[in-house]
Amino acid sequence: MAENDSLTKAPDTPGTLTADCCSAHAETGQHGYSKDKDAHLKRLRRIEGQIRGLQRMVDEDVYCIDILTQVSASTKALQSFALQLLEEHLRHCVAHAALEGGAEMDERVEEATAAIARLLRT
Amino acid sequence: MAENDSLTKAPDTPGTLTADCCSAHAETGQHGYSKDKDAHLKRLRRIEGQIRGLQRMVDEDVYCIDILTQVSASTKALQSFALQLLEEHLRHCVAHAALEGGAEMDERVEEATAAIARLLRT
Amino acid sequence: MAENDSLTKAPDTPGTLTADCCSAHAETGQHGYSKDKDAHLKRLRRIEGQIRGLQRMVDEDVYCIDILTQVSASTKALQSFALQLLEEHLRHCVAHAALEGGAEMDERVEEATAAIARLLRT
Amino acid sequence: MAENDSLTKAPDTPGTLTADCCSAHAETGQHGYSKDKDAHLKRLRRIEGQIRGLQRMVDEDVYCIDILTQVSASTKALQSFALQLLEEHLRHCVAHAALEGGAEMDERVEEATAAIARLLRT
Repeated sequence: MAENDSLTKAPDTPGTLTADCCSAHAETGQHGYSKDKDAHLKRLRRIEGQIRGLQRMVDEDVYCIDILTQVSASTKALQSFALQLLEEHLRHCVAHAALEGGAEMDERVEEATAAIARLLRT
Repeated sequence: MAENDSLTKAPDTPGTLTADCCSAHAETGQHGYSKDKDAHLKRLRRIEGQIRGLQRMVDEDVYCIDILTQVSASTKALQSFALQLLEEHLRHCVAHAALEGGAEMDERVEEATAAIARLLRT
Repeated sequence: MAENDSLTKAPDTPGTLTADCCSAHAETGQHGYSKDKDAHLKRLRRIEGQIRGLQRMVDEDVYCIDILTQVSASTKALQSFALQLLEEHLRHCVAHAALEGGAEMDERVEEATAAIARLLRT
Repeated sequence: MAENDSLTKAPDTPGTLTADCCSAHAETGQHGYSKDKDAHLKRLRRIEGQIRGLQRMVDEDVYCIDILTQVSASTKALQSFALQLLEEHLRHCVAHAALEGGAEMDERVEEATAAIARLLRT
């Protein structure tokens, strides 16, 4: 229902779809990642803790290989977070755009592919 | 001097070489990454700031693609830190082990390769 | 038209949607990657040439670092091919599934995310 | 023995160390990857087969996700090959350079780190 509303309003307010699909209507719970916000914040706080752990390791002259292992774990955690976000984005924003079709859809798919390319290249 | 000491003592205290080469004698400044400790800590604090930035972005319902871009930047920063650490490790610990030769060298090279594999797989 | 046909037939022949969206009706040209088939085959033949080049380099005892550079180029070419395929998949199959909605869409998104995860982990 | 020979000759022919350590004296078998040449060539021929398999898959309109899975497998195989080569390079060339010390060593370590960075960035 609310989803249909946003679809009907979309043509009148071009450009707002972006905000609509992933983030805006926090109160209606129809956007993408916001309903998982708490889980995301928890994940990111754990990663922040890992980075602080890395600082402690460097400060205490821990053996470099052990530090590298911890860097790999943090990178992996960041990639998992990104994949979770991407999955929600595909499920909500890209699907939403598919219903609109045309240029909106093309733009969303190109944008998502570019984001995946950036993740792959890091 | 201290380096020679540790070389002489190594057989008596197996496993301590590890600590020697990269971290232990902070006071002598001959170990690997410790002389770059400040630079490393600065880098890691910047990454910690990026992770906190990600939390803010999630909290403020920023568009997912923009969050993914920031995740890529943080991952890249972590990889750069890892490469810096790895270069110092090769220059100091692996070179040190090369002078000893034999099993010590083999072990260091396998360990470094395993660390690189973990970085590649994340 | 043909697209609607396949939509109508989908419930009767579960599992065929998969084939429909990306590959099956080569004659109608409505599927995903098949219309770009020639470009894909050309890309893959170039990558095959790079792999044969690597064999030549090993055979001629070329310096390892130069071989590693060529491996990186081949890996990059494979990743580019994957991204191209993925973009077409999102544009066609995932969009197609979005029009159907429900479980079909969920399944496609999970499947695409898992494929992206595998690309990231390599 | 032969190894000592190459060390003694190295100063007279600067720059040839590169070729010496990893590839040159195929007949003496003291270089890095050449003694594993057959294993490397076998690996690369298997990867070449995978790339040809990808061409067949595209040609037969196989479902894109299955093609992506095969791309991941090929990329992983290339990365494994690179890690193998890198391990031999560290064991032979970098160790060899460590014995010489100084600029030679610095150059080898920087070169190896740059190669690892390229592998990570793909």
